[in-house]
This record gives sequence, C-alpha cells and structure tokens, in this order.
Amino acid sequence: MSPEVERPERNSERAREAIAAAVADGAQIVVLPELVNSGYVFESADEARAAAEPRDGALLEAWAAEAARGDALVIGGFCELAADGCVYNSSALVDGDGVVAVYRKLHLWDAEARWFSPGEEPAPVIDTRYGKLGLAVCYDIEFPELTRGLALAGAELIVLPANWPYDPDPVDGRPVLHSLAAVTAYFNKVFVAVCDRCGTERGVEFQGGSVIADPAGSLRAGPVSDRGALTISAECDLNTARDKRTSQRNDAFADRRPDQYLAALANPPPA
Amino acid sequence: MSPEVERPERNSERAREAIAAAVADGAQIVVLPELVNSGYVFESADEARAAAEPRDGALLEAWAAEAARGDALVIGGFCELAADGCVYNSSALVDGDGVVAVYRKLHLWDAEARWFSPGEEPAPVIDTRYGKLGLAVCYDIEFPELTRGLALAGAELIVLPANWPYDPDPVDGRPVLHSLAAVTAYFNKVFVAVCDRCGTERGVEFQGGSVIADPAGSLRAGPVSDRGALTISAECDLNTARDKRTSQRNDAFADRRPDQYLAALANPPPA
Repeated sequence: MSPEVERPERNSERAREAIAAAVADGAQIVVLPELVNSGYVFESADEARAAAEPRDGALLEAWAAEAARGDALVIGGFCELAADGCVYNSSALVDGDGVVAVYRKLHLWDAEARWFSPGEEPAPVIDTRYGKLGLAVCYDIEFPELTRGLALAGAELIVLPANWPYDPDPVDGRPVLHSLAAVTAYFNKVFVAVCDRCGTERGVEFQGGSVIADPAGSLRAGPVSDRGALTISAECDLNTARDKRTSQRNDAFADRRPDQYLAALANPPPA
Repeated sequence: MSPEVERPERNSERAREAIAAAVADGAQIVVLPELVNSGYVFESADEARAAAEPRDGALLEAWAAEAARGDALVIGGFCELAADGCVYNSSALVDGDGVVAVYRKLHLWDAEARWFSPGEEPAPVIDTRYGKLGLAVCYDIEFPELTRGLALAGAELIVLPANWPYDPDPVDGRPVLHSLAAVTAYFNKVFVAVCDRCGTERGVEFQGGSVIADPAGSLRAGPVSDRGALTISAECDLNTARDKRTSQRNDAFADRRPDQYLAALANPPPA
C-alpha cells in the first residue's frame, strides 16, 4: 500500500481494507508496511506528532477487529504516540483480542531521528498460535546482530514493515533489500517477511520491495514486478525454521563459537 | 586454481606459480583458495595429515619468496600440521619477510570435522602495509558474528579462501556465496575478497566462485563466467572502508545498539 503523509485520515482506512482483504483470502499472518497511519516524509516533528496514535486507540482496535474475522495475526508499522509523550516508529502485533506487543524501532534512518525517539527495549520474539515471530522495522535489517538475536531467541519468522527508498540503479543488480532479506533468512534458517510501502511522497519514491524469504534463502513471494500496491503471499511452515541442520554434521546454531565472537562484538566501534 | 587431493606434490607448485603471476601483474594483496596444498575431498584423516605442512615449512617460505618480488601480501588456505600435532584448516598471511599470521578455521563444514581440529583462537585482524585485513575461511562467512567482529575490530578487507561446492540450481538465482559476500560487505562497509577453488575432485564439483565485493555491496570483480581457473582482480582503496557513514545522519557502526543485542547473542541456542 501507499500511505499519504498529507492525508493521514485516509491511511488507517486503507490499512483496514488491506487487512480485511487478506484475512478474507485466508491469510493467517498479515504484514503491513512501516508507518501505515502517517506516511513517511514528514516536514516537521509536529506533523509526525499530529499523525501519531496510541497503542490503545482506534487504529489498532480496527486491526484487531479485522484479525478476529479470521483468527489472524496482524503486524504493521505505525506512528505511535506513547504514554510517555514521545513519538515512536513502532511495529504492533495484534490478534483478534487486541494488541499483543509493540516494538519501537531501535535504529532510526536519516531524518527519522528528527521526529522519532529511538526504542529503548530489545526487539521481541512473540510466541503466537502460528509460531514464534520476531519483530523489527526496515533499517533494523542492516544490523545482523538484531536479526541474529531474534533467531537465537527462537523466532521462526522475522517480520519487517518497511518504507524502503527506491534505488533505480542498485549496486548489486537488484534491490539490496531483497539481498538482505534472503541472506538474513539464510544465515538464521528462518522465514523473513518484508512488507514495503510503494508510491511517491513529497518527491521520495519508494521501492515497493515486499518479499517473503525462506530458510534456504529463496524468495517464496515477490519481488513485486511493477512496484505498485499489491498483496503477496506464501505458505510457510514455520516449524521448518526450528530445524537449523544444514548438513549431516552441521547446524547453523550449534556450530556457532560464541566464545570466539563476543569480545569483538562487545567492543565499541573503533575510533 | 584447482588443487588435486590425489596429487598433493603438484599443488604447492601451482600455488607458487599463481602467486608469481599475480605479483608480476602488480597485485599487492594476493588471495588463494582454501587448502591449496592438499585438496579438499579426503578419504581419511591420515590422507589429510600426510598432506599437511607446518607454518614454518617450505610451502609458506615459497609464498614469502614470491611476495618479496613485489612487496606483496599473500593470503591462502593450507592444510596445517601444527606443533601440537593437530591438523588444522588454516589461512596464512605472508609477506616478503615470512609468515605474519595463521588463522585456524573456527567453523568446520561437514566431513572436515573428521580430519581437522577446530581453531581455538578468534579470527584475527592484521594491520598490514596495505590496510587492516580480517582473516576467515569459507563456511565462516555463514556466521555474521564472526565477520561483524572482524569489521568492528577494524578490518577494512575480509579475506576468505574457500572451497565452495557447486550448486547447479541455487535457490536465490545465483550462488549463495556471492550473496553472502555482497551482504557481508554491505553490512560492515568493508571489502570482501573470496578466492574459491574450481574443478572437480572425487565427484565433488566446486563453484569457482571467486568475487571481490566492495563496501556498497557491489561485486568489483567476478563472478568467474565459466567457473574455471582464473585470476580476478580489483583496485580497492581500503581507506574508504574506514568510513562507515551511510547518510547525512547515519553510520553503520555508530548506529549500533549493543545494549539491545548482546543478551540475545550471548544466549545459548534455544533447546
């Protein structure tokens, strides 16, 4: 979908319609883009704050109502006005009974730091009726520590709402977002579902780069050929992501040598 | 190049010739595949041990002699007979004065555990006349903790000798080794040089998947079109890998939130 920063009143209804259509089609896990209620290209912190909504408000209540029609889960990004008065770039996991979890983006991209406070809690893994879901948002995927941590904590599917800017001439011959999704899935032997917004907003063109990657590093769904508004879907047996074996003698997790990495990873970056 | 497990006496000379040719062409950093002195598809631990050579033996002395002709560095994989009596799958960094460092592969792939002892020291970063080099071997690239650790410790170029089996039908539409190299470079804003063996040995066909990736995630050299024996090269200004900025406000290292990852990464894998 393509939220519109200048018409936030329309965005929530569009998101609701997209959820309703996916649930009607039988989707069990529905993923929306980042910041679906607000749009992305803000001109001021006030504009972001004006579009922000609380986790216990009408926005996520509507998601829960749609989820309840099909016993579905909905994960989507939203511009959150928190009880502490801060505005966050958040992802909510909602089921038919309401909000299950809210994750606040840890890594803020570019101008986001002007409107959003960074999250101050780790990205969570939520045990749901359909499997263990790890939550992250967009630029978070560039931090392999975060996604590795989710997988080690048991995530079988990592769900990433995104607003990825379009790159007309990607260095790697395809959108880097797709390589990141595929390799993150491959490293961790998990599924990765990226729902990326489309459209152009205040001169910024977005990738429309939604993909679903599987534990082998294959794209099960996507990329979207014309980068327009589209729902993509795949059947994913999340139980298969619990098996980390990669050969008769290898296991992507058991083969780790944490005694040999942690000192380096714990170090601050070099000056 | 294509080492031959059944003719180890030829392998060292082939490696020497390849180094000599690269140095004569002006290469400053020369990378060889994994296990160049021994070949890969052993039938027994005894066969691997028979082909193993000490770090202070004729093999690496020959590399140093060739390096000295051009003030070059040579990094290559070799089957190492260690002073402790163990046989390791190692990578040596050699300059014109001799051996600078030896890294012993931490993550052993499949049957390798039958012939090799796993390394018991972290992968090192070596400050050389041409920049800071991080050493790793083949399957190590599937552990983002290892490569992230090398980059955080200052590596500007991660050098990976490899013996990667050929996959005629890669799930991601291209050899996963190339996606791994590109994304590892992109995550860490470093150069990654993979030198992969080619050829077929005892029924195992190898990828011949050598590539050089740059900090943007682009392949500067490779893939090798016919997967045969070939020297590929690229000019890489390693100083550029010291700059981790990715936007006016972002920095791939400064943006890390280590307080939010380490608990999960330090956890043992889920049962």
